[in-house]
Amino acid sequence: MRVFIAGIDGYLGWPLALYLTSRGHEVSGADIFFRRKWVEEIGCQSATPIGSMKERCEAYRRRFGSGLQFWEGDLRNYFFVEDIFRRFQPDAVVHLGECPSAPYSMMDVHHAIFVQTNNITTTFNLLFAMRDICPRAHLVKIGTMGEYGTPNVDIPEGFFETEFRGRRDRMPFPRQAGSWYHWSKVHGSNNVMFACKIWNLRATDIMQGVVFGTRIAEMGEDERFLTRFDFDQAFGTVLNRYCAQAVIGHPLTPFGLGYQKRGFLPLRDSMQCLTLALENPASEGEYRVFNQFEEVYDVTELAVKVEKVAAELGLEARVSNLENPRIEMEEHYYKPDHQHLFDLGYQPSHDVEAELRIMLTDLMKYRARIEARRNVIIPDVRWDGRREKARFLAHREGTRESEWRKTLDL
Amino acid sequence: MRVFIAGIDGYLGWPLALYLTSRGHEVSGADIFFRRKWVEEIGCQSATPIGSMKERCEAYRRRFGSGLQFWEGDLRNYFFVEDIFRRFQPDAVVHLGECPSAPYSMMDVHHAIFVQTNNITTTFNLLFAMRDICPRAHLVKIGTMGEYGTPNVDIPEGFFETEFRGRRDRMPFPRQAGSWYHWSKVHGSNNVMFACKIWNLRATDIMQGVVFGTRIAEMGEDERFLTRFDFDQAFGTVLNRYCAQAVIGHPLTPFGLGYQKRGFLPLRDSMQCLTLALENPASEGEYRVFNQFEEVYDVTELAVKVEKVAAELGLEARVSNLENPRIEMEEHYYKPDHQHLFDLGYQPSHDVEAELRIMLTDLMKYRARIEARRNVIIPDVRWDGRREKARFLAHREGTRESEWRKTLDL
Repeated sequence: MRVFIAGIDGYLGWPLALYLTSRGHEVSGADIFFRRKWVEEIGCQSATPIGSMKERCEAYRRRFGSGLQFWEGDLRNYFFVEDIFRRFQPDAVVHLGECPSAPYSMMDVHHAIFVQTNNITTTFNLLFAMRDICPRAHLVKIGTMGEYGTPNVDIPEGFFETEFRGRRDRMPFPRQAGSWYHWSKVHGSNNVMFACKIWNLRATDIMQGVVFGTRIAEMGEDERFLTRFDFDQAFGTVLNRYCAQAVIGHPLTPFGLGYQKRGFLPLRDSMQCLTLALENPASEGEYRVFNQFEEVYDVTELAVKVEKVAAELGLEARVSNLENPRIEMEEHYYKPDHQHLFDLGYQPSHDVEAELRIMLTDLMKYRARIEARRNVIIPDVRWDGRREKARFLAHREGTRESEWRKTLDL
Repeated sequence: MRVFIAGIDGYLGWPLALYLTSRGHEVSGADIFFRRKWVEEIGCQSATPIGSMKERCEAYRRRFGSGLQFWEGDLRNYFFVEDIFRRFQPDAVVHLGECPSAPYSMMDVHHAIFVQTNNITTTFNLLFAMRDICPRAHLVKIGTMGEYGTPNVDIPEGFFETEFRGRRDRMPFPRQAGSWYHWSKVHGSNNVMFACKIWNLRATDIMQGVVFGTRIAEMGEDERFLTRFDFDQAFGTVLNRYCAQAVIGHPLTPFGLGYQKRGFLPLRDSMQCLTLALENPASEGEYRVFNQFEEVYDVTELAVKVEKVAAELGLEARVSNLENPRIEMEEHYYKPDHQHLFDLGYQPSHDVEAELRIMLTDLMKYRARIEARRNVIIPDVRWDGRREKARFLAHREGTRESEWRKTLDL
């Protein structure tokens, strides 16, 4: 299959290129390196020492024998996208060309507008280019479980049958996102759903949980195949942040009460799931939604797991809750479906602690790179508009953290 | 009350300025005259001969004694908005500064992106400027009934109580819009809802029906107070198009089967309703949704009404259905609530035929201006991406049109 990856230089894009190529697919991609610039703007860097795209392409060529087709350019420029599609004629398009950070979008009006217009524009360009050049290609768009928010009912996969005043209909499940970034993904989902309806395109919209991990098997021992690993307040996801914190003896920092539940999955499972979606495409005109995560955890439960595995590796890491810079529910019902991927054969890794061991071991090699950016770990972007570092909360008995300590005998 | 109108030069903005000033409010506004440029781009002009903003301001000063505070500039520029808010310190902000055309947004990728990013950006700038300068001001944002689409259940006002798998929650009602423009309004609604949640802003989001009419009482007999009146395929709404068609003896053109139902309201009712929302503001942190229309009609029923009133005025106008350039349901359930405005005291005009008589009489004065643009009346922007004039459909017995003929004894 000919797969085009928009945003091939990112955390997911680069390992996906390796994963798909290893499975025999023909991969190409485009990027303008915004992710590298955004992280630099935040004052941080990837914990893993990633090479330039030129170095990545060189390593790829040595490993796989043929070169990676890579286009450097701006996916907000329609003619750039159109030109690529004419040349490459993709069977599938994976859309990772969006800005993926909630705090980045909450910094100020300029960042809010940038994130939403960037994400909407890149999505439009891919949709229109598909319509006009490869209308039978399959779009796999990465959204987020955060599009749904935390409603007081189960979360289906995109749509639900509901009754209202005695009549029934199947409708999109209401979205209640929690940041300008998360809303940008809702806007994109809505646009993709409508494009499938009017142009008969096929699309899978992935509501992805929080991804964690430093590697996938296909990287082998070659450092040049490492993907980026962010641990700053904006681009580091929670479990990745915990691991980076553990490595430098920084407290592990759940926000607020720490009872927030989310769906999580390791990087290797994300690759497996995206590939399942690609190899089992949606039908013509079909817009389908997959909730993509392995299991639901609360953020303190995971912090305590990191603490435990870190201790085994001789690292001292203590959980210490921070003021919550976000405005979100800290204790809530959470029961999302995730059946579609299992129906296609998803085999979850099911061993978070083993994955954490790999991550911490990997990151210990790069301790100095993390230590050098210790000052950007505590968040200062607040949802209420202030820019002020979150403070540590005094430890309280009876919180989720102390419960988990008991359970795990710590 | 100090009311700032974003988009004060438009179809609704200009009469709203007159209406609010007549009621003793202090009005200011901004515009960059995009609406005039878009209509020109489509190859058309307002049927009514509207003056420049300079002429409008001059007439306003003579009528009301003091000048209208007007800023010419781009609402996509945050600093422009911030500067106005600092100077004017509004108690209320009416957001009419968006591109309001479905066909315009469906022309091509560039127009789709323009409409969505323009509408998102202007909304963001108003929200952030409110947060930072006048956080207690009330935002009245104009959305559209088209945000809901045509679900097979009743349409509540924004939110609904629903049960799913035995649990209950109050959630936003699912939106299923029918064009990139309509989706831009959904994106905006979502952003405004979230801003109220995190910043405690107050907002009323108006899901407005299709507005029709040439005038409101406050214009008097002075032609310089006329608002624009569009009849082209992109900016002319359906009933306004019918009236312009009737005046030049052009067939009245429902799309497809002509069974599509929508909520409608005259321009004078729109002014009354917006003012009710302004004079009864939302509470701090409240995001409320009003469905704003007088009554539901299907588009053939209205065409037949226009035909009848036109005949009384000596105009011959025959209904003749066109191929539907849109992709939409042509026969569907439609039962939206609209109680909130009645609760605030909305007194509907309840006489469509009287309003049509006024409209046709007004438009007959400008027949030559409409006749001169006869060639842009038949739509050529199609939802499937083609650009090709819609053809007339052969008249069929048993259609809604023939039923209405019988009812009305035509």
